[in-house]
Amino acid sequence: MSLKFIALSGTTGVTENCYLYETEKDMLMVDCGVGFPEQEMFGVDLVIPDFSYIKKNAKKLRGIIISHGHEDHMGALPFLFKDVRAPIYCTKLVAGFINDKFKDHSLKNVQVNVFDPEKDVLNIGEFKVTPFRVTHSVPDSVGYAIDSHQGRSFHIAEHKFDQSPVVGHTIDEHKIKDLAKNGALFLASDCLGSNKLGFTKSEKVIESKIDELVSKSSGTVFFTTISSNISRMQQAINVAKKNGRKIAFVGRSSEAKAKIARGVGYLEYSSDMVVPMKILGRQPKEKRMYIISGSYGQPGSALYKVALSDHRFIKIESNDTVIFSSDPAPPGAKESVDFLVDRLTELNTNVSYYDTQVDMHVSGHGSREDILKMFNLVKPKYYIPVGGTVRFMRAYRDLVVSGGGSSSSVFELTPGEVVEFNKGNGQRSGKIKSKEILVDGLGIGDVGNVVLRDRQILANEGVAIAMIQIDGEKAKLASDPEIFSRGFVFEKAKKGLLVSAGRQLGKKISEKERVDTRTTRFIAIDFLEKFFYKEMGRRPMILPVIVKV
Amino acid sequence: MSLKFIALSGTTGVTENCYLYETEKDMLMVDCGVGFPEQEMFGVDLVIPDFSYIKKNAKKLRGIIISHGHEDHMGALPFLFKDVRAPIYCTKLVAGFINDKFKDHSLKNVQVNVFDPEKDVLNIGEFKVTPFRVTHSVPDSVGYAIDSHQGRSFHIAEHKFDQSPVVGHTIDEHKIKDLAKNGALFLASDCLGSNKLGFTKSEKVIESKIDELVSKSSGTVFFTTISSNISRMQQAINVAKKNGRKIAFVGRSSEAKAKIARGVGYLEYSSDMVVPMKILGRQPKEKRMYIISGSYGQPGSALYKVALSDHRFIKIESNDTVIFSSDPAPPGAKESVDFLVDRLTELNTNVSYYDTQVDMHVSGHGSREDILKMFNLVKPKYYIPVGGTVRFMRAYRDLVVSGGGSSSSVFELTPGEVVEFNKGNGQRSGKIKSKEILVDGLGIGDVGNVVLRDRQILANEGVAIAMIQIDGEKAKLASDPEIFSRGFVFEKAKKGLLVSAGRQLGKKISEKERVDTRTTRFIAIDFLEKFFYKEMGRRPMILPVIVKV
Repeated sequence: MSLKFIALSGTTGVTENCYLYETEKDMLMVDCGVGFPEQEMFGVDLVIPDFSYIKKNAKKLRGIIISHGHEDHMGALPFLFKDVRAPIYCTKLVAGFINDKFKDHSLKNVQVNVFDPEKDVLNIGEFKVTPFRVTHSVPDSVGYAIDSHQGRSFHIAEHKFDQSPVVGHTIDEHKIKDLAKNGALFLASDCLGSNKLGFTKSEKVIESKIDELVSKSSGTVFFTTISSNISRMQQAINVAKKNGRKIAFVGRSSEAKAKIARGVGYLEYSSDMVVPMKILGRQPKEKRMYIISGSYGQPGSALYKVALSDHRFIKIESNDTVIFSSDPAPPGAKESVDFLVDRLTELNTNVSYYDTQVDMHVSGHGSREDILKMFNLVKPKYYIPVGGTVRFMRAYRDLVVSGGGSSSSVFELTPGEVVEFNKGNGQRSGKIKSKEILVDGLGIGDVGNVVLRDRQILANEGVAIAMIQIDGEKAKLASDPEIFSRGFVFEKAKKGLLVSAGRQLGKKISEKERVDTRTTRFIAIDFLEKFFYKEMGRRPMILPVIVKV
Repeated sequence: MSLKFIALSGTTGVTENCYLYETEKDMLMVDCGVGFPEQEMFGVDLVIPDFSYIKKNAKKLRGIIISHGHEDHMGALPFLFKDVRAPIYCTKLVAGFINDKFKDHSLKNVQVNVFDPEKDVLNIGEFKVTPFRVTHSVPDSVGYAIDSHQGRSFHIAEHKFDQSPVVGHTIDEHKIKDLAKNGALFLASDCLGSNKLGFTKSEKVIESKIDELVSKSSGTVFFTTISSNISRMQQAINVAKKNGRKIAFVGRSSEAKAKIARGVGYLEYSSDMVVPMKILGRQPKEKRMYIISGSYGQPGSALYKVALSDHRFIKIESNDTVIFSSDPAPPGAKESVDFLVDRLTELNTNVSYYDTQVDMHVSGHGSREDILKMFNLVKPKYYIPVGGTVRFMRAYRDLVVSGGGSSSSVFELTPGEVVEFNKGNGQRSGKIKSKEILVDGLGIGDVGNVVLRDRQILANEGVAIAMIQIDGEKAKLASDPEIFSRGFVFEKAKKGLLVSAGRQLGKKISEKERVDTRTTRFIAIDFLEKFFYKEMGRRPMILPVIVKV
């Protein structure tokens, strides 16, 4: 009779959050998010958790509770649902996002149960789950008190103590305090802000800064933020209204998220405020504000196209204003934003971004004081940092210690690691098999180390193909090998190099009394690797194609 | 009779600084630096300026003056010197770095002239050049007053007003003021800090912070900074001495730079303070400090190897201290540092890096007040921002305007752009041909857009090779095409896909009455692109190899 907490993924990365609570009879999943590929994972679209343990124990999975509407907490649900289904429980905005996602994946008959975090208690197998409101960078976020026969635990995926959230509700401190009054076994909570001093600022501080820029702009305003940041959109809309501007949403993701949020009452505007982008284009420019996708400068996003003067319907003009209201934290985002800012500057627009004087972003993650305050509310016996890499887990542990806790009360877990709680005591209890599953196009999991290593070589060195014809009867070369390449050298300039390589390779092969396929392959790879390294200092992938004629 | 200022490169990027001053008879080069490849420039080692204009006008090149000892201001000299030579003028530390660089490239008989920036005036062709001291993140940095028949101009590649540089000299404000007393035609100066408020802090503030960490450390200390940052090394050495630790330099670049700097008197330590790393390893750990290369987390650097427990001589232990004393600004550096910090945290070491509370870095670039102060000292008629991308040039222009200047007095130049000065007036005067020259291995300039585009496709999608044998006499397929791939799918798992692709392609080709090479190539590419996209959602590069048998 024990409770297992399994960090399926999401503990050594910031994203890909997926955790399991397991007893003998039942299993509960908290969050089911995607991860984003690191830069050297060439061609990979997404990373998803390894669901093999869940597939194996599919009968035990009683339900999935989702903490909030970010991709890295709910984006992997369609991938799970290809194999295993279970009822999903979440707040209404999150349900909107999830249903939209399932529609994208053409998955039907999915059971998404909406709860009211102020009243409802969920009975999921033998777990009793009590949600409560928290504040984050997307409205309708919740934490959970999870009861099992081992007592009460708290799972709070992300939180900050925002006393003036723009839309939605403040964090329900009293309910947390009340739920924790008889003690808590453990607290699993967000560690990403463990290095940041103080409390994270309220979302509310942004609105006056947007107004400062918009009110002095005489051109069109382009406002970009992460599409799930509904509060930020609301503030942009408020400012637009105040300044007599109309809004158009541009970009699939901004449009869809805004529509869902308005549908459930988290985005408020009168119908005449928001118009289709083609209509907005007919307004005078000082009456226009586009809320546009592409806040990380993503190539192909609507803002990217606008900045490169490549958008079908929207033309940006000198003296227009572009506001990046986001922190380019993900790998590569800073470089992409820098690139767009340079292009937008060339167009003589006024650009506000992470490096200019007016700070247009606050984090959704709590800082040290937010985290300590949560420790004080819950007062758990054990701690499990989630949603941050190794260095953030360590900083979180140091926070626990600075608050008087012991470092042995903190479980810094790697993906797959299990903590088992029994009679009020927790201890590490092995590891389940768990690897990162890479999604590339329609393929799920077939791209792994072998393919990635090849892609890295191909990326940096290119490929040289040696076409070699052997006269099978005489066991001799039929002709000099022909060599062609891609991504190695510019062939127009280096034709001589390849011809000479082919001729010398032919000579080398012909030194053998009898020429056969196997030896020829070996000689070709060995000779060409050395030859090209000597001549060019490069090591292209050598692929001999040997034909017997 | 005019003076041309040519921004050969370095104006739309932060690096690759190279500028020309040209009159009818003479040409003077200021700086000759390398650039660093952007992340999507797969396989590229370095970017260098396009020297074709200089080669064409080689006879006019009278000399090269170097502002300071950073790679992006002098690293391209060996590449230039393969074709064109001219006397180099610089301070003694810079000369040490340059001679070391030429030795690496096995280039001999290079004339490097050392000047004393407090006394010497250089006559280079018809240019009279007066150097003066400035402060930057490497000692012995200078700016130049450059006289021609068009009057006096100032070229100040990088500067901050550091009132307490750790080694070397303060910026020679009075000399600048004096040199400018009869007016200045233009000022070409560093724009990278144009967005930062205030003055940049003095290098001196770092020492007490290093001491704070080192004095409480009971294990070995690993200190890493950019290897040319001699002042930072000096401060680390001072702290080591104070705390009874000995030093070893680890990593080719740190060792070499330290040796040169000590040789010319910019790094001071008694001989017993610094020992070889193997000797340091025998000291008790609380008496060790390694000054180690790898402050950007570069894969393969000494610190990288240590963090991955892969260094031949140095083993890091729990409770050791690692201090990153640098700002991971270059593309990809933040991700590399994050990776190392996570590995070092796993080893239970104490890591101080850009995200922890003690700020271990100050910039070498002036901020807004430094830049404005230089404007006030020089009071030029025209301004040319250098060493920053488009967005920084624009912020620099805005600074000029905020100080009462006109925006038309600022020339924001793209690479190759020329400004012509005549009778005290400057105007844009066309553009010389100038493109980025990529260095990959031993190849200089042969990797361009074609090769890079191929590398990008290969990186993200891999390659599929279709080997197709045609019976030439019968004009029929000799057998089903065979398909193999690299970086596309994991072949062990997807063998069936490739076999099926080959079989179906064979059928498709055989639909033709007569099978010939040209049509077969076309069919193979067209069919396989569609087939693989339909089956896998991927678009590998398709390379048909067609053999007539």
